[in-house]
Amino acid sequence: MMEHRILDSVHAPEDVRRLPEGDLPILAGEIREKLIETVSQTGGHLASNLGVVELTIALHRVFRSPRDKIVWDVGHQTYVHKLLTGRGERFDTLRAEGGISGFSRPDESEHDMFYSGHSSTSVSAALGIAYANKIKGSKDYTVAVLGDGAFTGGMVYEALNNAGRSGTRLIVILNNNEMSISRNVGAMARYLARILSRPSYSRLKSRTERFLNRLPLVGKPLADGLSFTKSHIKNFIYSSTMFEQFGFRYMGPVDGHDIGVLCDALEGAKELNRPVLLHIRTVKGKGYDYAEKEPTLYHGISKFDVDSGEPIMSGDNYSKHFGEFLTGMAEKDKRICAVTAAMSVGTGLQPFQEKFPTRFFDVGIAEEHAVTFCSGLAKAGMLPVFAVYSSFLQRAYDQIVHDGALQGLKTVVAIDRAGFVGDDGETHQGILDVPFLNTVPGVTVYSPASYAELRGAFVKAFYHDDGMVFVRYPRGAQEPLPEDYVYSEADSEVYGDADAQVCVVTYGRVFAYACRARERMNRKIKIVKLNKIKPVDPEAVAAAAACSRVFFFEESERSGGVGEIFSLLLEERGYRGDYVLTAVPDEFVAQASPAAQLHKYRLDADGVETVITERLQDET
Amino acid sequence: MMEHRILDSVHAPEDVRRLPEGDLPILAGEIREKLIETVSQTGGHLASNLGVVELTIALHRVFRSPRDKIVWDVGHQTYVHKLLTGRGERFDTLRAEGGISGFSRPDESEHDMFYSGHSSTSVSAALGIAYANKIKGSKDYTVAVLGDGAFTGGMVYEALNNAGRSGTRLIVILNNNEMSISRNVGAMARYLARILSRPSYSRLKSRTERFLNRLPLVGKPLADGLSFTKSHIKNFIYSSTMFEQFGFRYMGPVDGHDIGVLCDALEGAKELNRPVLLHIRTVKGKGYDYAEKEPTLYHGISKFDVDSGEPIMSGDNYSKHFGEFLTGMAEKDKRICAVTAAMSVGTGLQPFQEKFPTRFFDVGIAEEHAVTFCSGLAKAGMLPVFAVYSSFLQRAYDQIVHDGALQGLKTVVAIDRAGFVGDDGETHQGILDVPFLNTVPGVTVYSPASYAELRGAFVKAFYHDDGMVFVRYPRGAQEPLPEDYVYSEADSEVYGDADAQVCVVTYGRVFAYACRARERMNRKIKIVKLNKIKPVDPEAVAAAAACSRVFFFEESERSGGVGEIFSLLLEERGYRGDYVLTAVPDEFVAQASPAAQLHKYRLDADGVETVITERLQDET
Repeated sequence: MMEHRILDSVHAPEDVRRLPEGDLPILAGEIREKLIETVSQTGGHLASNLGVVELTIALHRVFRSPRDKIVWDVGHQTYVHKLLTGRGERFDTLRAEGGISGFSRPDESEHDMFYSGHSSTSVSAALGIAYANKIKGSKDYTVAVLGDGAFTGGMVYEALNNAGRSGTRLIVILNNNEMSISRNVGAMARYLARILSRPSYSRLKSRTERFLNRLPLVGKPLADGLSFTKSHIKNFIYSSTMFEQFGFRYMGPVDGHDIGVLCDALEGAKELNRPVLLHIRTVKGKGYDYAEKEPTLYHGISKFDVDSGEPIMSGDNYSKHFGEFLTGMAEKDKRICAVTAAMSVGTGLQPFQEKFPTRFFDVGIAEEHAVTFCSGLAKAGMLPVFAVYSSFLQRAYDQIVHDGALQGLKTVVAIDRAGFVGDDGETHQGILDVPFLNTVPGVTVYSPASYAELRGAFVKAFYHDDGMVFVRYPRGAQEPLPEDYVYSEADSEVYGDADAQVCVVTYGRVFAYACRARERMNRKIKIVKLNKIKPVDPEAVAAAAACSRVFFFEESERSGGVGEIFSLLLEERGYRGDYVLTAVPDEFVAQASPAAQLHKYRLDADGVETVITERLQDET
Repeated sequence: MMEHRILDSVHAPEDVRRLPEGDLPILAGEIREKLIETVSQTGGHLASNLGVVELTIALHRVFRSPRDKIVWDVGHQTYVHKLLTGRGERFDTLRAEGGISGFSRPDESEHDMFYSGHSSTSVSAALGIAYANKIKGSKDYTVAVLGDGAFTGGMVYEALNNAGRSGTRLIVILNNNEMSISRNVGAMARYLARILSRPSYSRLKSRTERFLNRLPLVGKPLADGLSFTKSHIKNFIYSSTMFEQFGFRYMGPVDGHDIGVLCDALEGAKELNRPVLLHIRTVKGKGYDYAEKEPTLYHGISKFDVDSGEPIMSGDNYSKHFGEFLTGMAEKDKRICAVTAAMSVGTGLQPFQEKFPTRFFDVGIAEEHAVTFCSGLAKAGMLPVFAVYSSFLQRAYDQIVHDGALQGLKTVVAIDRAGFVGDDGETHQGILDVPFLNTVPGVTVYSPASYAELRGAFVKAFYHDDGMVFVRYPRGAQEPLPEDYVYSEADSEVYGDADAQVCVVTYGRVFAYACRARERMNRKIKIVKLNKIKPVDPEAVAAAAACSRVFFFEESERSGGVGEIFSLLLEERGYRGDYVLTAVPDEFVAQASPAAQLHKYRLDADGVETVITERLQDET
């Protein structure tokens, strides 16, 4: 572990404010070293955090957290904030079970406002705080920090539409990072790029730098904030019609890697005493140039999805198989279109994107639009596939009901990261998609347990089923299955001992664990595997009803899951035997490895064995 | 029934195109008469339809529906469209069971693109169609028509962000109606009002009118569309930075009640061969001035929520009781804030709004923002209440999970229109809230059966429960309850014969029907009433488990509802008796009166009686 003279002395924001100005660039350097050192061990979101080092330092110098409240959008950009708010010593536990979260977490620190893992929510939440302050007569500030990627989500506009003329002390910081600009989609990204490319920007920047180099302005109390604002900061203020239409005072663009300029701008924003949008320019992954000098330091860092900051799976995995299979199908069927909400790499769609650019759509972080857009494509004869992570699909619940299922149009949804996702924790678990899709009338849901079954499910989704069809599969690779098991393309299958009195019913990867448990146990077990989980195959119910003890295992929240439905279907068939449902109880699931999560909720081979053994012991 | 010489001759869009220009204002007048005549009998959305009479005529003259596709946002503005597309003769069945829908419906006509009842979806859907046309090389046009109210919803921005530079033949018509402007909230409404108030608008308008009066331009093939566009339409084209930033060509504002001007503008938009935003100005309720001359004609028309077009309930009802009770509580507790998504009247919040304007927030049609905004208010010490219709709350499912429940902050959600809503049909039924809330970890849900219980539930929500709390209640008035029943404030109650073997379990208004059925039946029946439906009270399970036959009735979709959960809780308690669940099966519920819907799904007193009687007969 490297020594960091200044960083190691920072235990709270007060310590940041106390540092002499000259130490700040050194602090920034130490933070970058610490980030690289840690993330190379733990994995995580590196680039976005390297981009906000100076911004985070400036925020904690100008604002008094937690009295002033800093709300970070998609909290994976809070590593620096964590280092400056007392979590430096435990930082090496980042994303580990029981360790520091990779996102913001109020239970970790009073400086974290919200659990935050989904994008584009910060302005809404910050506006609520700002209004509450206004009602209470508090003079505290509320700051929302979000990237240009978050600006592709509609919630930001709903919030801006309400915020601009709220008369609150709300400061919205739009962090425009250059790596993202070139990749980000849509009109907003182009608009922001256009502002940044204004010739006056660079001229102003150098002038400002000269000015700031001459004057020790930062940290000094400003005798007359307003006159300062007028005489100096007004130089930053361009007419950005878009944000001014929303009623904000627009400031920017400002160099987001110059702590002095940032502090001045933030002080200026405070003085305005009204909603301000401060537009800063940063370089995502600032400090990646270190890699040129010390390439070994970078060795252990996993790859990222540039759009999302999401680590990319290497090796064999479901995402890759999906992407390749879909690309092959699209070769044969010209109607197939692929849609992603800023997750082209993570969902495995890159081969499709490269091969069929005119049938590929990255709509930005806009899951709602994505689903309804697919309905439009389907209405006009296309075969759209929306590839999305389970946790993000829930953002489009209404669109699935109202613009998808109700229309009876064929949209196929490829649900990646279904089930436990591991170290991303509560906000990213894929354990709600089964329950919320169970509530949607008329849709079909598959949950394959192998790559072969994944392919089979998509063929059925495209060419056999009507309406909306969902195919859900976990993060990572296929689990090994017994050699004597062959996927049959049926809606359900029976594996194991057909004459057993003990029956396990399950689906998805838990099938593999159930098979492993059966191999270990000295007992006849029938395994009923659901391939289609909505609607439930009546033959599966019949197969289970023939036994006297049914054990249902599902890697899903229990409430609203298939296990409850299956119980009632058995009951309605006259089943009066024992029924034990093992699923995730009514709670959020904390970060840990997927294996540890499966183990905790008794959904791995050990769990299956234990649940059955304990129950049979209880009864004898 | 009045005779309408021209309207009665229109059976399809071709007939509209065939009419001489001079007949069009007469047609518009006849349509207005027909609308007023019909809606005075059927109820429905009058004002929004009166506002789009000329626009709809112009659309069907310029575009060739259904080859060109017209996508109407919130389909309640399609009455005129229905009259011009072959549904005039059945129009008197509007909103009745088996009759013409009050919204757009593809199964009613090939001219209706989508079932559409929720706002702000049209641009996304239309863009999908437009892209499909582009991929297929089709030259057909796609038109999305939406009001300024829909522009408060974030989905519109997600769509605009993707549409502007799509290179598709997409024409977005922003229908700015004046009644709405003064009421609509937020920066966008003010921005649009500012465009409309430009001094040049009225000058241009009168010049255009003179110009058009001299020339028989409409309907005549334009020798050179582009030069026409340049010489004439360009006069309409203002620099509207907002929409041009999104990559659209902006045209407008145009007088939306001048068919000639509208047709010219639409022809001009077609010639541009790229995404166009046409901004028109209409008067919502155009033709209301008829009321001055023929006031009796207006007698039967029910009141509307000006923001939403939603009819206002008169007489005693849950919304009114909620609004009055909340206002009383807010008097005592200064932390209470009320939030609505453009439904202040419909949800009964007007007294609150008038009395506590600084603690009242109408955020526009922005349910997602509303929920997250409430979390912000709660974070800073307020007690926010979000009052919303069940069907619209589903738009904020992710925010309920991610920004609400996960944070553990206290937001109270008042869910109005829970259960069957009647003539609004599939898109508005409140039968999914119970299932989707059942999937959300850690939240509490109440479903009161009386005004007294409604009040009790809110007191518990505010001062006893932790985290997010939902109180759901139906459209309309409290059902009469037995005189010997008294609400006890417990989480569940037992009513009727404590020693009965037959047990009915239910909640909400169905409790009243169950009591009525019990009174009629010559049989001992124990009724277990759930006051809190999430989590389910273990005492309720125990009370039911003591019987040999349990009948669960719920006015909710079955899949994911309480009945499935209750079944498994009984099973886990060792119950091996008979269990019959009566709920809405896996389907969308069509328009009819709420009474007819309750009857159809066996959830009224007749239904309860029939289900029990049939089951007991089957078994004997």
